[in-house]
Amino acid sequence: MGNLSVERRREIESSFAKQGLMGAFQACLDKIGFGKMEISMPYSNSISQQHKFFHGGAVGALADTACGYAAISIIGNDEAALTAEYKINFLAPADGDRLIAVGSVLKPGRTLIVCQGEVFIEKEGKRKLCALMLMTMCVVKNLGHK
Amino acid sequence: MGNLSVERRREIESSFAKQGLMGAFQACLDKIGFGKMEISMPYSNSISQQHKFFHGGAVGALADTACGYAAISIIGNDEAALTAEYKINFLAPADGDRLIAVGSVLKPGRTLIVCQGEVFIEKEGKRKLCALMLMTMCVVKNLGHK
Amino acid sequence: MGNLSVERRREIESSFAKQGLMGAFQACLDKIGFGKMEISMPYSNSISQQHKFFHGGAVGALADTACGYAAISIIGNDEAALTAEYKINFLAPADGDRLIAVGSVLKPGRTLIVCQGEVFIEKEGKRKLCALMLMTMCVVKNLGHK
Amino acid sequence: MGNLSVERRREIESSFAKQGLMGAFQACLDKIGFGKMEISMPYSNSISQQHKFFHGGAVGALADTACGYAAISIIGNDEAALTAEYKINFLAPADGDRLIAVGSVLKPGRTLIVCQGEVFIEKEGKRKLCALMLMTMCVVKNLGHK
Repeated sequence: MGNLSVERRREIESSFAKQGLMGAFQACLDKIGFGKMEISMPYSNSISQQHKFFHGGAVGALADTACGYAAISIIGNDEAALTAEYKINFLAPADGDRLIAVGSVLKPGRTLIVCQGEVFIEKEGKRKLCALMLMTMCVVKNLGHK
Repeated sequence: MGNLSVERRREIESSFAKQGLMGAFQACLDKIGFGKMEISMPYSNSISQQHKFFHGGAVGALADTACGYAAISIIGNDEAALTAEYKINFLAPADGDRLIAVGSVLKPGRTLIVCQGEVFIEKEGKRKLCALMLMTMCVVKNLGHK
Repeated sequence: MGNLSVERRREIESSFAKQGLMGAFQACLDKIGFGKMEISMPYSNSISQQHKFFHGGAVGALADTACGYAAISIIGNDEAALTAEYKINFLAPADGDRLIAVGSVLKPGRTLIVCQGEVFIEKEGKRKLCALMLMTMCVVKNLGHK
Repeated sequence: MGNLSVERRREIESSFAKQGLMGAFQACLDKIGFGKMEISMPYSNSISQQHKFFHGGAVGALADTACGYAAISIIGNDEAALTAEYKINFLAPADGDRLIAVGSVLKPGRTLIVCQGEVFIEKEGKRKLCALMLMTMCVVKNLGHK
């Protein structure tokens, strides 16, 4: 794959900063690559479910966002990309201090971009895969992706 | 299907109240039925994506929660149910004032409960289907579902 | 939705007849509607799994085909539609004499068409829902869909 | 992971031989490992779609079977495993001479086993990833898995 331009990197950072949900989650865009993104967030009460683990919906939202920006990193300047669908399997309880989602482009395409999301739960310094996502982004013309 | 006991209804309300994510979303458990739940939330900046629509991850989280409690409403007193996986297709932009998720049990089972989630976006009083979820809950013994 | 033209109906019948898999399955295109298709096949050893039920993969293939033609029925004359992805949940063993898949367009779109597939198993004259599919077709220009 | 016993290997071979669909597909169980299976099949008219590629439903069926036996290879002697659900994304047209599905256990569990299936299309000696599956097997007690 190619490289990420400085402009595209700034666009992604700016777009991410505009996502109120990511702000509310205190999420950070830790790594920005061409076709690969890493986003993490600390545990807090506002993303918990009833057993005080990370809520499955928050796990899905983080993975969706990481995959979405992985796709956005590879599209053209006159294109935008929207989530068409995603599927997530939960592999272990998201019981820990920090959640890390890694989104990667599996298959670039002119119309569809297929991504994989891996979500890791970190507890006392140890990382464990806790969810796996397979998702599809749809590329559209002439919409700002910022 | 059967009826929801007063005890189970209270358990679900109490469990829902403990979900920090639902609190942060200002979500309400609007309808509690046996095998069917309706949850809604108003638009706010803290659940937005970069275009000021509801974030797809928040759409997924609301549908997951509605489906999850639909499943929990039909399990035994000594059982709990956990999300095994879900898949969501986005049908229209979640551009509106309020998001409503309806979760319904499609197939009850001793081990697996398959649910469907429909998500509607409400704008100026009109409702429109904006996402559809197909998900699987896994029933486990001897874990509190509260 | 609109009506299916005689030409489109013939194209679909002709395309279906060219699918070697459907021929091997002895599958019939029972109902052809605008945005809705019904395909059925009898039980035979060549579509069985090890317990002599319909193989889950054959269940998926039939539902995929019904959904695919439901999408093809609504696209333009200069368009084709390809399966982007599908997800299927198995609700009951496919133990019976005949399998019936009903594919319906849930959401038409210029680029993506989201369909739902319901699969019924028929045994001694009784029908039972045995699987549910949620799938996405991708519309492409300038490819024959015949 | 552990090793596959001679008995389990024979059970899997015997179960595979009983699958009429795999026989009709002329499919071979090429590699049998603990938590990992590889199945392939040649192109033939009886697994084609209308453009003379491998039918997407056949691609799904092969991946489902590879994942299913990967799960069955790791369960206990008194257990069986059934497909609960699967999701498949098509990455490239299955245009070639031979289709190869590799099923791997991603997450073993007492009740659920999550598997990944990779499907490769081989044309003139070159292999290309053409589909990716994420699927869930449900483990049940006291049913013969043969």
